[in-house]
Order: sequence, then structure tokens, then C-alpha cells
Amino acid sequence: MPRLEVTEKIVAAKLAKGLTWEGVAKEIGPAKEWCTCALLGQMAMNADEAAKAAKIFDLTDEEAKWLTVPPYRGGLGQEVPTDALLYRFYELIQVYGPSIKALIEEQFGDGIMSAIDFSMDISKEKNPAGDRVVVVLNGKFLPYKRY
Amino acid sequence: MPRLEVTEKIVAAKLAKGLTWEGVAKEIGPAKEWCTCALLGQMAMNADEAAKAAKIFDLTDEEAKWLTVPPYRGGLGQEVPTDALLYRFYELIQVYGPSIKALIEEQFGDGIMSAIDFSMDISKEKNPAGDRVVVVLNGKFLPYKRY
Amino acid sequence: MPRLEVTEKIVAAKLAKGLTWEGVAKEIGPAKEWCTCALLGQMAMNADEAAKAAKIFDLTDEEAKWLTVPPYRGGLGQEVPTDALLYRFYELIQVYGPSIKALIEEQFGDGIMSAIDFSMDISKEKNPAGDRVVVVLNGKFLPYKRY
Amino acid sequence: MPRLEVTEKIVAAKLAKGLTWEGVAKEIGPAKEWCTCALLGQMAMNADEAAKAAKIFDLTDEEAKWLTVPPYRGGLGQEVPTDALLYRFYELIQVYGPSIKALIEEQFGDGIMSAIDFSMDISKEKNPAGDRVVVVLNGKFLPYKRY
Amino acid sequence: MPRLEVTEKIVAAKLAKGLTWEGVAKEIGPAKEWCTCALLGQMAMNADEAAKAAKIFDLTDEEAKWLTVPPYRGGLGQEVPTDALLYRFYELIQVYGPSIKALIEEQFGDGIMSAIDFSMDISKEKNPAGDRVVVVLNGKFLPYKRY
Amino acid sequence: MPRLEVTEKIVAAKLAKGLTWEGVAKEIGPAKEWCTCALLGQMAMNADEAAKAAKIFDLTDEEAKWLTVPPYRGGLGQEVPTDALLYRFYELIQVYGPSIKALIEEQFGDGIMSAIDFSMDISKEKNPAGDRVVVVLNGKFLPYKRY
Amino acid sequence: MPRLEVTEKIVAAKLAKGLTWEGVAKEIGPAKEWCTCALLGQMAMNADEAAKAAKIFDLTDEEAKWLTVPPYRGGLGQEVPTDALLYRFYELIQVYGPSIKALIEEQFGDGIMSAIDFSMDISKEKNPAGDRVVVVLNGKFLPYKRY
Amino acid sequence: MPRLEVTEKIVAAKLAKGLTWEGVAKEIGPAKEWCTCALLGQMAMNADEAAKAAKIFDLTDEEAKWLTVPPYRGGLGQEVPTDALLYRFYELIQVYGPSIKALIEEQFGDGIMSAIDFSMDISKEKNPAGDRVVVVLNGKFLPYKRY
Amino acid sequence: MPRLEVTEKIVAAKLAKGLTWEGVAKEIGPAKEWCTCALLGQMAMNADEAAKAAKIFDLTDEEAKWLTVPPYRGGLGQEVPTDALLYRFYELIQVYGPSIKALIEEQFGDGIMSAIDFSMDISKEKNPAGDRVVVVLNGKFLPYKRY
Amino acid sequence: MPRLEVTEKIVAAKLAKGLTWEGVAKEIGPAKEWCTCALLGQMAMNADEAAKAAKIFDLTDEEAKWLTVPPYRGGLGQEVPTDALLYRFYELIQVYGPSIKALIEEQFGDGIMSAIDFSMDISKEKNPAGDRVVVVLNGKFLPYKRY
Repeated sequence: MPRLEVTEKIVAAKLAKGLTWEGVAKEIGPAKEWCTCALLGQMAMNADEAAKAAKIFDLTDEEAKWLTVPPYRGGLGQEVPTDALLYRFYELIQVYGPSIKALIEEQFGDGIMSAIDFSMDISKEKNPAGDRVVVVLNGKFLPYKRY
Repeated sequence: MPRLEVTEKIVAAKLAKGLTWEGVAKEIGPAKEWCTCALLGQMAMNADEAAKAAKIFDLTDEEAKWLTVPPYRGGLGQEVPTDALLYRFYELIQVYGPSIKALIEEQFGDGIMSAIDFSMDISKEKNPAGDRVVVVLNGKFLPYKRY
Repeated sequence: MPRLEVTEKIVAAKLAKGLTWEGVAKEIGPAKEWCTCALLGQMAMNADEAAKAAKIFDLTDEEAKWLTVPPYRGGLGQEVPTDALLYRFYELIQVYGPSIKALIEEQFGDGIMSAIDFSMDISKEKNPAGDRVVVVLNGKFLPYKRY
Repeated sequence: MPRLEVTEKIVAAKLAKGLTWEGVAKEIGPAKEWCTCALLGQMAMNADEAAKAAKIFDLTDEEAKWLTVPPYRGGLGQEVPTDALLYRFYELIQVYGPSIKALIEEQFGDGIMSAIDFSMDISKEKNPAGDRVVVVLNGKFLPYKRY
Repeated sequence: MPRLEVTEKIVAAKLAKGLTWEGVAKEIGPAKEWCTCALLGQMAMNADEAAKAAKIFDLTDEEAKWLTVPPYRGGLGQEVPTDALLYRFYELIQVYGPSIKALIEEQFGDGIMSAIDFSMDISKEKNPAGDRVVVVLNGKFLPYKRY
Repeated sequence: MPRLEVTEKIVAAKLAKGLTWEGVAKEIGPAKEWCTCALLGQMAMNADEAAKAAKIFDLTDEEAKWLTVPPYRGGLGQEVPTDALLYRFYELIQVYGPSIKALIEEQFGDGIMSAIDFSMDISKEKNPAGDRVVVVLNGKFLPYKRY
Repeated sequence: MPRLEVTEKIVAAKLAKGLTWEGVAKEIGPAKEWCTCALLGQMAMNADEAAKAAKIFDLTDEEAKWLTVPPYRGGLGQEVPTDALLYRFYELIQVYGPSIKALIEEQFGDGIMSAIDFSMDISKEKNPAGDRVVVVLNGKFLPYKRY
Repeated sequence: MPRLEVTEKIVAAKLAKGLTWEGVAKEIGPAKEWCTCALLGQMAMNADEAAKAAKIFDLTDEEAKWLTVPPYRGGLGQEVPTDALLYRFYELIQVYGPSIKALIEEQFGDGIMSAIDFSMDISKEKNPAGDRVVVVLNGKFLPYKRY
Repeated sequence: MPRLEVTEKIVAAKLAKGLTWEGVAKEIGPAKEWCTCALLGQMAMNADEAAKAAKIFDLTDEEAKWLTVPPYRGGLGQEVPTDALLYRFYELIQVYGPSIKALIEEQFGDGIMSAIDFSMDISKEKNPAGDRVVVVLNGKFLPYKRY
Repeated sequence: MPRLEVTEKIVAAKLAKGLTWEGVAKEIGPAKEWCTCALLGQMAMNADEAAKAAKIFDLTDEEAKWLTVPPYRGGLGQEVPTDALLYRFYELIQVYGPSIKALIEEQFGDGIMSAIDFSMDISKEKNPAGDRVVVVLNGKFLPYKRY
């Protein structure tokens, strides 16, 4: 899969050049969450963004083109992640899943939170007892169509 | 599993009495996210909260005691949820997982966001193009211990 | 699961009374595709429709209430259906999946066909060489949000 | 698997040359749905079509021959697709599956919709509230043989 | 599942009355292979056959009706059978599968042997070195439709 | 796995030279079903047959030797085949499995049909309504030993 | 499954009456290995043995009849046993499997050790360093048929 | 995995040189069962044995060193083996598993047969009705420690 | 499974009577780790201990007898535990597994730590920064037998 | 995955140079348990430690940098380990899991033992009846947050 190789090249270049995802995102334009996602092969850039990325990571023209192709989504390569950081998010669905479902349906009715018309924000909350990770998920509510 | 039967009794009573999770949570005390989670069998109440819940849902003393037992966690009964609303959250881990990992590690270093020292908030964002679901995840960052 | 028992009661009553899904749907109101889906426990009726269904299938008040609860979706109870009729649809995703993805993305850009803002129509096409099943899937295109 | 390499070569050439599946299908002959499916390795072309495809994608004679071999079907490489676009189709089977089965059997009797004597059509329905994807599945009904 | 209970009742009655599948099939009408399959819940009888079966196995009217409903197919309840007799058939697909595919495609072209327009015959071949089981599978060839 | 590479070389040579499995089998000797199975790596040839095969497919001496090694059996590389032609055979076990078991045990007693002392024959039955595939399975009955 | 209930009744009666498998086997007739296997529902007794077993375990006539039915084999209810004693046998296949295959094929040629024409003997070998379990597997070699 | 490559080199050399596992084992020293297991990468040789093996199979010094490393055990690469010879052993656990457990516990008490302090012997039993494979498993009984 | 019901009865009685595992273990005799394990159905008590347990938990004679039967081991009912507390132990194997293996083999040679001749101790380490759980695993080293 | 290749290079170099994990850890600094874990790709070193490791194992600068990247955790590549040494630890969770959970919750309340703020120690306990492996797990207790 050529796309996978482009991702690996980006990750290796980032390590070699000592770049940060946040710094790279600022140069390319969109939010750091979206940008990292696109560079890791789960969102599709436009030609302009791909050109900027190509310059930062020394990609060839053909490699840059791959950044603009809608990807085959699913970045884990595992049903249930073994990575400790990612597993915690999976565990949250296991523990809070039925409650999330109950509360969204209570507030909005029968439907879902879109994972497409969706944005995410990750930030740090300073705390003397240990800093906290704050992740905000923001997705459009889509009611089930009746017909 | 007696605990499962208590959960089913709570869900049936809620439907029959026309209660809401939010209303119930207000009477019991803690946040609606935590409370629903406890009533659905994924958090352990203290004796006081269990007594209030017992009154609301007409539970016997023994059933109320089950609400105070640390539960066997895992509320889905499936590795990958088939429910459309819950699957969207799973899909977010598939699509955003590697980016979440990359960004948290960039901001905090090697470690995880705790799913134990953790709180969640679900709210509605009014929007003329369709209301939006906003889910805020807030967990303590835990760095890997070196020894 | 009480909901499951309601579904079984509906299916048994339909068999005993010799009803058809199409006839039932006409009495209740919505399209036969949506209505069957709701009666089999995968869509949520409003109170009015539930009342009509209760009358047709001799449901109690409490059973009727279950018809209005947003269901836990996933009607197969299997990852890959073993039923021959259903497997053919699964096989279509296996064979045509990558092409469907390629063609939708070519015509619409990066995004998905909604399974929520969605309707379906099943009809018979008369044909001397053997009648044909025609299934029309109609879902809103949702582009990936950029931010 | 040589066939897989031919597919990858076709996909890379399409990207490099800026071709569209629809344009390519027009040159080769059959419907765009069937043609894309064949180029992605899930249908077998005849020698004539393979020759045209070879010319468009700069394939060698041996590579072209692979386009005419009945493929090992199953294009996803996963039981349940993680890709968001494809998963929606899988979700439809989970949600609508039992209803599709019930309605086809009600209209046709015990049997299946063929996935072999089958055609598919994907088109865009213009809509001010957002364009819609329309997928028409058309398959011969095959009744179970009694003997 | 009521259907499952009907099957269990049939199996128990057969044991108690000392019946044979072949004898039962002769009374009901169709071939013993088809008939056993229907009684074990994988084919749908017509009302006439169901009535005969009801008489033989002392089924109620409602139980007899279940024999006429197109079943949810998949009689094993396991992906890979653990039963030694059934596993041998599964093993044949593992060992001979690619050859069966190669030879059918060589003789017939790209397509499948129908499992719907299909009949099966099981018989005994007398042999001094040990009797042999002869299973004849007979299914219509269905070529892939081109469009 | 060297054996796999030999198989791939055989398949590629067959395509390049325009050979048929039936024609190749006639030159090598055994039945086309057994021969194809051996060439695809699921049966072990003797030295003589391997030498003939080597000549037909331009194999080296070492490659020819691999044809004589008892293979690791299991030609699908999947528990449940996704290929449409092969899946139909798997579906037959799902649908007819319990009936096959019931009928063999009724005719032969407790035991199995051997998949080792076994032969298979695939032929075409001409039929104006569409040709039919006829597959004859012939295996020795092995009764369970009592001790 | 009635058979399962018969097994559970046998196990409970054995515990209540303080019987041993070996003692029971001596009364019934065949080897203790075969007999235990039959009582636990994985071999089929003849009417005579079933009658003896019925007397020992206070089975009804119908329950005794179940002991004579060829069972659906597979006594673990798990693909890989979690029980420590049974897992060790599974581990032996994982560790020694390829060697067993290599050595049997070297001594006998291409074929298998029958699990049907098969007997097993379990005994104790006294040893000052700790007694040893000796399990002897004895199965007919079946060569692959060539045709 | 370098170890895997050493194994493949050994297997290829054995085929090319026409060696037998038994002959090789005699030269190296330990029993043929243990030796084959070590050469196939599931036991660790000492330096002396590795040196002899290196000479027989033309291994380099580094390759010989790999023969002395405790291996990652699990030689099948599959949970349930598809190979017919190996599957028969797996089937024995499915059929006889509960009986083996019952009989060992009856003779020895609660504990296991060690798969570590363990030896195996494979031999041929001449028999006019067809030779028989005799596999003797000999493992120390380990009682569960009470504390 | 009668054993499961005994376990459920014990757990319910403990909750109703407000007992602790540690207190119960002191009355019965062995270490709290072993005792809890036995009461939860994963170790076998002797008759004496079972009698004491029966008195504490109001078990019948037959229920007490079940406590002395070697259990079918595997207390999770899941391959990978979803419970947060248990998953952490599973995660440790995922993260530390290869290192544990490397270090034990470096210190002891090729072999395993026995899970049978094994004891465990769980205690609390007071710590101002938050108390710590200390789990000590103590198992006999078993070297692989050479023969 | 470049990281995997770095691990393989480290393992090969260790074998070629005859190093021990303990000796290497002493040179690098942290405990042998942590150090081995980091060298096998499951912990992240700081630049200083990576430099020392690079010198010991002849790594390039880029390879050394990979040692400082937070790894994707999960070192087994299997859900359930087949390796005998590792499986014993998995078996302990299966057998002792529910008891560990019960006892930690009894002593600490509802929460978990952290696998992040965690250390491990592996040592040898001399014993005339056979040396014993002692593994000490030490993790901070984290109570579930209430909110």
C-alpha cells in the first residue's frame, strides 16, 4: 500500500528533523487534530495542503498526491487496541457506552452523534495534583429519518 | 447474575414511571453522567445513594446492596458495538486513535489519560444547521513510571 | 431483554393471525420497510404508531411502550450472517465494497452515505426469465468536516 | 499474489494520470460499477476489455491476462470493514437485515436475491438539503428448489 | 426462538417413537435429504407437508405453522463445526476448495454452483473393504452477469 | 514458504502457456480433481508425477522435489471463505450439515465419511434451463471403534 | 439440549453417590476411557450398556435412549480450553505439532492417524520424583487415497 | 524473525540432501521426537548439539547460535490447525478432553500432567488390518499447591 | 452448571451477611488468596474446608460437595477481560511479557514458572502519594525436560 | 515499522556479542526489568540512555532516536500467548482473576492497580526442592473518581 509508505516516510522525517505535529499543523493550516489525522493517513488533504506537507517532509509529487486521496479508514490495525493510551478510550466506551447512549437519546431523541460532521480538540488542563488531558468531541446530531 | 437483573428492573421501572436519567440523577446527587453509569451497573454507589435509588425504583434491600458492589466492568457485551450511536465512538478511535496518541504524547510525554481519575460531560450545543452533541472527556495524565 | 420478548410476541402473533408486514404497515402508517424494521426492534415508533401496533398484535401497555424506546441496534446477532438471503448482501459488500467506495468518492468527494438520514425501498420487477428483486438505497451524502 | 500487484499498478497509474473510473469505464465498455469492480480485481474481463485496460494503464501482456482470470472474491480483507463509508453499508445489514429478509420472503416466497445474476447502479440525487447517494441493487430472485 | 423448540420436539418425538428420517420422509413426500433438512429447521414446508409432519410428531397447529416459515439459515451454531462427521466436510473445502474453484471455472467460466437451485443425494456404496458414503451435489451453474 | 512459491510459479506458468488443468492432468496421470489438488499444494505427488509436472511448468529439480512433500493442508487461508463459489459449499454445510449427519448415521451407524480414503468427481450436466454442476463425493465410512 | 441435561444428571448422581468412573466402567463393560467418554456425551452406547448406565445413575427410559444417539461431538465448548489440565494437551499440539507431523509422515508416508479407529489408555507410572501420567494414543494410519 | 529463517533453511537442506529426521537425530544425540522439535524451532539445543546440527545442515555460526535460544513457543501459527493430521489430535481433545480430565483427576487428584517435564514417543504398530500409529505421552503429575 | 450456582449462592450470601473474604478465609484456614479462589470456583477444597464453608454460607450437603470437585478452570468467561482492574494485569503481559520471558530465561534457562506449584500474596503498601497494591507471585521453576 | 527493526537488531547483536540483559541494564542505568522492556520496544528511553544503548548495540543515530519514541504498546502480537512461559501468566489471570479483583476491592475499595505508575521485580528464590521464580508487581491504587 503506497499510502502506508508515505505515512512511514512522514513519521521518519518528523523524527529525523525533530518536528512537532503542532508546529507542522500551523504551517499547513487546519487544526492540529485534523492535520495529524491527515498526515497519519486518515483524512484527505487538498492539493494546497499536500504541497505544503510535501515541502516539510520532502515528499515526491506522487507521494504528495497520495495525501489527497480519501483513505481507507481504520488506523489501528486491530479490533481492540493493545496500546495502553488507546485502550483507555476503548475502555471508556465499554464502561460509559450505555450511559452515553441513554443520555444522548434522552436529550436529542433517537439518532446519533455524527463522526463525519465532527471536530475534536485536545488540550492540557494545569492541575497541581497532576495535569489533566481534556478531549472535546463535537459532532452534529443526526436523527433517524422516518419515512 | 443478580446485578444484571437489578439493572433490568431499573430500566423497566424508569420506562413505566416515565422518569428521566437527568431527573433521577438530581435526586440522587452526583452528575448525570456518573449516575446513569452507576444505575446501568458500571459504577458503585455508596449506601446513601443506593438507598435513594432504591426508593425511586422500588428496589428491595438486597437489590439496593448490589448497587454498592464494584461491578465487573464492560457494559457492551460485544467487542465492537453494533449499535449505530456507540459504533460512531468506536469509529472515532479507529480514525483518530493514532493522532490522539501522537498529540497527547507530544504535549505530555509518554503516558496515558486515566480512565479512572476521569469525568465526562455530555451537553447540547444549539446550532441552526442542526444541534450538536458535545462530549467533554477529562482525565488525569499519568506518566509511565521509570525505575 | 424485554424488547426481545416483545419482538417474539409480535412475530408469533403475526404467524397466528396470518398477517402480512405490508398490511400491518398500511394500518400503522409509515413505509413497509421502516415499519417492519420498527416492529422487529430496530427503529423507534412514536406513541401513536405504538398504540396502533399494540392493537394489531395484542400488546400490553408496557409492551407498547418498549416500541417507542430507541433500540440497541444490530439485528443479526452475528458478525457475518449465515442466513443465505442475508449473506448475499454481505457478499455484495465484499465484492463491490471497494468499487462503491471509489465511485461515491469520485462523484461526491471524501465522505459517506448516511445510514441515518436514509430510506430504503424493496420492490419486485416482473421478468419472464425470473422475477427480480430491486432494492433502492437512498442516503444523504455527508462530507468529512474540515476544521 | 500477482493479481494484487496488477490492482496496485492500476490504482497508482490512475492517480498519476489523473483518470476517473467513469472515464475509464466509458473507454472499456461495460457499466462503471462493473468496470471498477473488474479493475479492482473482483470481476473477470474478457480479452478485449483487458486489452483496452492494458492500454489505458500501461500493463504488460501478462498483467493484462490476469484481468481475465476469475478472481478469488472478497475485496475487503476484513470481516467487518473499518472504513467509515463501507461500514455504513454493513450497518444497514445489521439494522435492516431481518426486515429485508421478511419483506423479500413475503413478496417472493422462500429464496434469495442472487448476488451473481445481479447489477448495481450508483447515482447522485440533487437535493437542496444536501445531495443524496442512490444505490440501486437489482438481482434475480432464486426460489429454493424442492425435490 | 419458537422454531428451535419445534425442532427439539421433533427430535425428541422421533427418538421416543423409534422413527427413521427415511421413513418419515416417505410419508411426507419429498426426498429424505430435503425432508430431514426441513424437519431440522433449514427448509420451509408447504401447509400440506407441515400437516403430515404435525400428525407424525404430534405438533400443535401453531407448531405446524412454524414449519412453513422460511427459516433463518445456518444450522451449525458454529463457524467451524467441531463434530467429527461434519468437520470432514469442512476439511474437504479446506483441502479441495481451490481445486473445485479452478475446475468449475475451467469447465463453466466465471460463476458459481447455486446452493439454492440445488439438490443432494446421500447413498451407501457396498464395498468389501468397507462400505462407502456417496454424496452427490447437484446445483445449477450461475454465470456472473455482465452489464 | 517455498511450497507456496512453487504453487505461484505453476499458476503463473499455466496462465502464460494457456494450459488447462484437465489437459495437464491427462499428461501427468491421475484424475483431474486429484492432480489439480496436488499442483495447488494440497496433495503429494510421487517422484514420477513430479518430474512430469516439472517439465510442463519449467520447474527446477528442487521445486519438483517440493511437489512430493506431504503438504500442510488448508488451502483457503481463511476460516470461512469469502469467495462466492467456495462460500456456497460452506453454506451447504451450514444448511445441510445436521441433515447429512442424521442421514449418514441412520444408514451407517455412529462414525464418519473419511476425507482421506476419499475421491471426488466434478462434471457438467447439460440442461436446457441452464447447465448444472455435479460434484460426487465418495468416502469410506469409518465406524467409531469401541474398546 | 436434552443430551446435555442427561450428562449433568449423570455427573450430579456420581457426586451424590460417591461413584468413580473406573468403577462405573467395570460394571458397564468397555474400557474406562471409552466409557467415561460415552457418559460425558461424546460416544454412543448400545442399548445394553445404556440400560446398565441407567440403573447406576437412575435415568429414565427416555434419558437412557439419549445415551445411544450418536452425539454432536466437541466436548469443550471452547476453541482453546482455558482449563489448565486440558490446555497442557493443547500446548503439546502447539509445541510438538509440526514434529509429530514430520515424524508420522517420515515413518508412514502421507496420511493421518485416525481419530475414529482409535483407542486411548491413561495410566499412572510410579516414580519417586513424583508420579507420572502416561497417555497412550493408538490410531490406525490412513494413507491419502490416490485416484 | 531470524529463527524462522534458520528453520526454513534446515527444512530446505533436509529435502535437498535427502536426509531423515530419525537419521539426523541419531547423529545429534537426543530422541528423534525431541530433536525434530528442536530443529523445527520449538526446543533449545545446547552448544554441542547446535554445532552438530550446523555441520549437517550447513549453518553459519550465527545461525547455529539461534538453535540454542529458548524459542517463542507455538509452532502452528493457527489457533485450530487446518492440517488434517494435526487436526485429528485437536479433535481428540475436543472429544476426549473432559474424559481425560475426569480420569486423571480420579487417579491423581486435582492437578495437571506437565507439558514441560514431559517426553513423547512415536512408533509404528504393525497390523494386518493396517498399521497403527502409537503415540505415548509421558508427563509428570503436578498437584495444585495449597497454601 | 451446578458449580456456578454454588458460586452465585456464596457471593449473594456474603453480600447479605456483610462478610469479608479475609474473615471467611481465617475461619476456613488457608491463605485468603487461595480461599477466595476456591470459593469463587477455581480451586478444590478438602471435605473439612468445604464443611466450614457450608456452615458460613448456609450450603446444603450437595452444594458443599461441589466445593471439593476439581473445577473446570477459567474464571473470566472472556479471552481478554473487559473489567478495568483485570485488564491492567492483562496489559502487563502485553507490555512486559517478552521482558519477563527474557529475564526468567536468562536467570533460570529454558523453562517456565509453574502456575500449579504456585502461590500468590496480595497486600497494601502505605504511601503518602497514594497507597500501592503489591502482588507477589511465587512459582517453582520447571526446566524443559531433555530426552 | 522501523522500531521493530531496531528491536531485531538489538536482539541479534545481543546474541552475537554474548551479552546479558542484566549486564546491559547495569551499563544503561535503570532496573533490568524496565531496561529490557525498553530495549524490546515497550518503554521509551531518554536521550542519554538511548546513547548508551546505541553504543552497546552498534545502533545508528536514527535507530537510537527510535528508542526515545513512546512505543505502540502490546508486545505479544497475539491476544492469548501461545508461548508456554507467557501462557502461565495468562492462565493465572484466568484462574485467580476474580479473586484478585475481590481482594483488591475488599482492601482498597472500587478502583484499579495502575499499570502505568508501576514497577516489577523478578528474582530467584533458592529452594532445595527446585528454585522458585518470584515476581513482585507494585502498582499505585487508583480509586474511581466520583463527580
